[in-house]
Amino acid sequence: MKVLAVDPGYERLGLALLEKNNKETVVHSECYQTMSKVSFSERLGLIGSRVRELIEQYQPDALAIEDLFFAKNTKTALKVSESRGVVIFQAVDAGIPVYEYTPNQIKVAVTSYGNASKHDVHTMVSRLVDLGDTHKLDDEIDAIATGLTFFASHR
Amino acid sequence: MKVLAVDPGYERLGLALLEKNNKETVVHSECYQTMSKVSFSERLGLIGSRVRELIEQYQPDALAIEDLFFAKNTKTALKVSESRGVVIFQAVDAGIPVYEYTPNQIKVAVTSYGNASKHDVHTMVSRLVDLGDTHKLDDEIDAIATGLTFFASHR
Repeated sequence: MKVLAVDPGYERLGLALLEKNNKETVVHSECYQTMSKVSFSERLGLIGSRVRELIEQYQPDALAIEDLFFAKNTKTALKVSESRGVVIFQAVDAGIPVYEYTPNQIKVAVTSYGNASKHDVHTMVSRLVDLGDTHKLDDEIDAIATGLTFFASHR
Repeated sequence: MKVLAVDPGYERLGLALLEKNNKETVVHSECYQTMSKVSFSERLGLIGSRVRELIEQYQPDALAIEDLFFAKNTKTALKVSESRGVVIFQAVDAGIPVYEYTPNQIKVAVTSYGNASKHDVHTMVSRLVDLGDTHKLDDEIDAIATGLTFFASHR
């Protein structure tokens, strides 16, 4: 079973393709960035196109995406929501079911502890899966954690 | 010149195709509705597919969409933003430029008066374009007003 997991954003989007046979493995992960010199609508276009490419390439069985936490900065929250909508559309358009997880669900799934810090989550992710030799950015690790949450809730 | 104008939403989406030669005409308008019994991600899928269909059918030169007003209800605002993102993606994906207008810009463009009421806007829309015999829903008229704003700013 394969899942495309997404840590949503518009400047940086964490994307991870995880597969589970006996054990979860990270097949691909990236931090997809869009430049602020490009118009916001063009950035949404780039994000949607990249997610569509990954779906075509890896043919995942599901898309897992982090739910937006209650945001203090409404303007940022609205922009992240537009990006989330674009990502979710690609999955639905390809006939792939969408699973959404709150930051708390992800923390509990990965560390068994709802008050876990970002550092705790990242430490546990590196124990649960082989992250390889290349340095992973925070957004990628958050996406991987979201993918692990999907598998934890589909045993 | 043709514009696809959108009053964004997820329960009801106002969609209007306007054309301008000597005068603005409403070629098509509809209030596209999605049912709450369908999952939210599926609703985003339906909205994106409908907008894509209209773009394919009418080949507009631009997409005009209302900017989100500062919302009191954050949860609703985030959902409308996801829908907006999906709509904007369809335009960018089809190579069509996107124009965004605030509610105030639309009021001023249609009525010349920033404090105009919704009723004032609707009255002016019915004077500026032929709305035909069929009853138009508020969302359709708002979309038509957005399309008229596009033409007013592209003289």
